[in-house]
Order: sequence, then structure tokens, then C-alpha cells
Amino acid sequence: MEFSTILPLSQLSCFIPKTCTLIRAHPFKPWRHRNSKPARFRCQKMYVPGFGEASPEKKAAKNMHNFFTYIAVRIVGAQLEVPSVPSCYSYNTEAHKDLLEFLDKNSLNDGDKFCAALMRESPRHKGLAMRILEVRSSYCKKDFEWDNLQRLASKMADESNTRIMRDYVLETSHDPKID
Amino acid sequence: MEFSTILPLSQLSCFIPKTCTLIRAHPFKPWRHRNSKPARFRCQKMYVPGFGEASPEKKAAKNMHNFFTYIAVRIVGAQLEVPSVPSCYSYNTEAHKDLLEFLDKNSLNDGDKFCAALMRESPRHKGLAMRILEVRSSYCKKDFEWDNLQRLASKMADESNTRIMRDYVLETSHDPKID
Repeated sequence: MEFSTILPLSQLSCFIPKTCTLIRAHPFKPWRHRNSKPARFRCQKMYVPGFGEASPEKKAAKNMHNFFTYIAVRIVGAQLEVPSVPSCYSYNTEAHKDLLEFLDKNSLNDGDKFCAALMRESPRHKGLAMRILEVRSSYCKKDFEWDNLQRLASKMADESNTRIMRDYVLETSHDPKID
Repeated sequence: MEFSTILPLSQLSCFIPKTCTLIRAHPFKPWRHRNSKPARFRCQKMYVPGFGEASPEKKAAKNMHNFFTYIAVRIVGAQLEVPSVPSCYSYNTEAHKDLLEFLDKNSLNDGDKFCAALMRESPRHKGLAMRILEVRSSYCKKDFEWDNLQRLASKMADESNTRIMRDYVLETSHDPKID
């Protein structure tokens, strides 16, 4: 299974109109005169437009929050798949089936909405929802390696940039020995 | 503009079939006997299935990498929108137009693919692509507040869990004074 996306088309489609509105509204006014948050500039960071009252960190946190719900569903699904204690085999089997059936009918795109709907399905589903809420919180706080995420993202930025530039050079340059 | 997603439908649709395959393949074999990475278990972390050779951190890093490309496009777009140095007004205006037109025709869902295509469009587009590559790397390493991301995600987990449970209780319980 792949966890790959990021930008839904709905966002990208509204990127351009908003930028154009800004151009029309302030054709010659530098951005630093338009922004109401001077803190960003005092700390010498690049200005990121379009996040309104939020911040890129908050948007990314929302994204990670949904990712943790998805992870929690997978963790709980795996735990229920095969019972570790034989006596609860029957509960686990039933609950696993309930979870799969619910997943079939409900989108996990919005983690909170998914959990709220699961909680209202039946008393057994409510138990599953409570477990998923607990697991996603615990996974976020204890298991997920945040330092590793930062390290991997930095490494990916370097490697991807090098690869993109190398591919371009290889594609556009000619080897004089071949010509 | 919103940056909200996470899970593309393509992932979710393959969640259940893969789980089912596992069930069929190993109906009674506990997961700890099936996994080839014992490190996860020695450190007492919850088992997260379905990431193969990768890890949740790597998937999240890929996600963040695409997010940083999106952020870099916004940063460069804002920088070009109004020139800080009057003499480069003409270049900025033209480049800004180029960027908007390219965004109109090309998806930003895959950041690397977007940059590679931008680089091949024309020499001026190549300059834009190089700038976006530089900005996304710099933003990832210097500007993005990783600690803040972790803090916000933890806070979001707590607040969302509380809100979901509170809403459920409010919805299902009856106030004896009203009845």
C-alpha cells in the first residue's frame, strides 16, 4: 500500500485565482507592507503566502494527524487480525470483520470524521473507535520517530535535487565522443 | 488555499484487499512470526503493517517533501509577484506569468515530477525550477519548525480525541432536567 500524496487538486485549483487577486489589489505594493505578521520578518524567514491565520506547520500537523489515524487503523486491524490471547479469538475475529466492513463503506481521508462515524455505528464499533483514538495519540507521542522524519526529509531534499539536476544535464548534454 | 488531505483514495482502496491476502496466507500465524524486522519489537513499539521495506517515517517524509515543493512554489510566486528591486521588474513579471501558466497546466501532486517538467519547458522556466529546488531545500532545513510540528500534532491528537468523545457523550446522553 502506498502513502504518497499531498496536494489535492482542490487546493491547486485555487492557487492561481488567489494570487491573481493579490496582484490586482496591490499591483506595486511590496509584500512586506501588506503582511500583518511582522514576526516572520524579524526572524529572517522566507514569506509563505496563502496560509491565513494558520501556518505551514499547522497545515502539516493536520496532515500528520490524519496520517496517524490511518496508521492507528492499520495497527488495530493487525492486532485484531490474529488474536494473541486465544480466549478473545471470537471478539477479535468479529471486531476485525466489523472494521473491514466499516472501512469498505467509509473514507479515511478525514480521520476525525471517520472515528466519529465509527463510534456511532454500534456499541462494538464504539469500542473499536475508542481503541483507534487511543492508539493514534500514543503512536504520535511515543512511537513515531520525529527526528527520523526530519532527517529523512532533509536527505530526500538533497537527493531529489541532485537527481533532478543530474537527469537534466544527462538529457541535454552531448558526449563529444559519441557525436 | 487549503492544505488538508492525506490519504488518496488509491491507498485506501487497496487497504482491505492486502489485509485479506494476509489473512488467507497465514490464517493462524501471529504477526510476530511473520515479520522480518525484529528491531521494531525489541524497542516495544506497536507493529504497523503494510509499509514493506519503507517505514511510516519514510512515507511521511515523502509527503513532507511534496509539501515543501508546494511551499517553495508559493514562496517563489510571492517573491516574483512584486519586485523588490525595480530594475528586475520586467524579469519578475514575466517569470511570475510563466509560473502561473505552468501551474495551470501541470499538477503539483508530485513535486519532483513538477520540477523536472518545469526545468525542460524553456531556459527561463529552468531558472524558475532551479530556484524552487533551492528554496524547498532551504525551507526544509532552516525555516520549517519541526519542533512546532511535533508539538502541534500532539496537541491536535489530544484535542481531537477529547472533542470526539465529548460530542458523542453530549449526543447520546440525556439531561434529566430536560426529560
